[in-house]
Amino acid sequence: MTQILGGLKKGLAFVVSAPAGTGKTTLVRMLVEEFSCVVESVSHTTRSPRPNEVEGRDYFFISKPEFEKKIQAGEFLEYAEVFGNLYGTSKKFVLQQQEKGKHVVLVIDTQGALQLMEKMEATFIFISPPSLEELKSRLHRRKSETEEAMAQRLSWAQKEISLAGRYHYHIINDHLKIAYEVLRSILIAEEHKTGL
Amino acid sequence: MTQILGGLKKGLAFVVSAPAGTGKTTLVRMLVEEFSCVVESVSHTTRSPRPNEVEGRDYFFISKPEFEKKIQAGEFLEYAEVFGNLYGTSKKFVLQQQEKGKHVVLVIDTQGALQLMEKMEATFIFISPPSLEELKSRLHRRKSETEEAMAQRLSWAQKEISLAGRYHYHIINDHLKIAYEVLRSILIAEEHKTGL
Repeated sequence: MTQILGGLKKGLAFVVSAPAGTGKTTLVRMLVEEFSCVVESVSHTTRSPRPNEVEGRDYFFISKPEFEKKIQAGEFLEYAEVFGNLYGTSKKFVLQQQEKGKHVVLVIDTQGALQLMEKMEATFIFISPPSLEELKSRLHRRKSETEEAMAQRLSWAQKEISLAGRYHYHIINDHLKIAYEVLRSILIAEEHKTGL
Repeated sequence: MTQILGGLKKGLAFVVSAPAGTGKTTLVRMLVEEFSCVVESVSHTTRSPRPNEVEGRDYFFISKPEFEKKIQAGEFLEYAEVFGNLYGTSKKFVLQQQEKGKHVVLVIDTQGALQLMEKMEATFIFISPPSLEELKSRLHRRKSETEEAMAQRLSWAQKEISLAGRYHYHIINDHLKIAYEVLRSILIAEEHKTGL
């Protein structure tokens, strides 16, 4: 186990946004596997689980009324509607992990991230595909969606990419290994900033 | 050769300060060896070369009158007197390297670094020994100095360490391998900041 990370009493928060098909899930999972002091925030969502998704690991799958109750109770750090489904990050989950000295990675879309930029001390990282063409062919390979859903996703991706400049860091995932090294370098660097 | 660094048209500047005996020379040399896009700034000094030091690689060794002429001509980004000797960084050297897309590492003492903080766009990194005790025993092993010079160096080190909080990053060189990984991570992260 590497000791290069995990030296802080209170963990840091990292917000990662990336269009679908950019490899964010893989990249964040690599981080969690390499560093025991890094955890991924598990979001709540009202959308249905995909075939490989596991409750409590990928998401907490809840109903729309349950989700709305949590909004009313102020339990979310941020929430957003994406393609008709609600996604939200539990305040309690994030804070509890940070208090344990864990760095928390929040994988959220640009809408949620923009909300957080104003109210949360976090490092914001945007991951983008090398090009929209490349993203298109990656989504084609995934084959989990209709043509229409895919077109919608691409147009949304384009909007998201235009917001990359609002983030602190921008990683272009051209080669997974290099993109991962940049991502882990950002965490390592951030932990060694003064004034934490 | 790794391609994780070197993607910018104009290189960045990194200012590294560390008390003597902290391993800064080794760490910076590792960086220059790993990345062809990283160069170390070669300072001018009026002090005499140590046995292993090479003109143009370690320093440009010049006389005091020559040094003072360069000060008058405004050729230095910063200069400082340390233990009776003058040290200065040539503006031209740094800018020329940056224009070539090279990241320039300036290894300078805290006096010089504080001058630069006000007038130069750079990332400031402080490297410290795990403790003053450890630094003392490292300097003992070096055996290049009298007891008096060493005592002076230690008291100066203490003053320098108290300034670490003014830098952007603080690396504690407890294990060389880990300290190096942190240092390279800082360069990689900085290159991937938005708004460069």
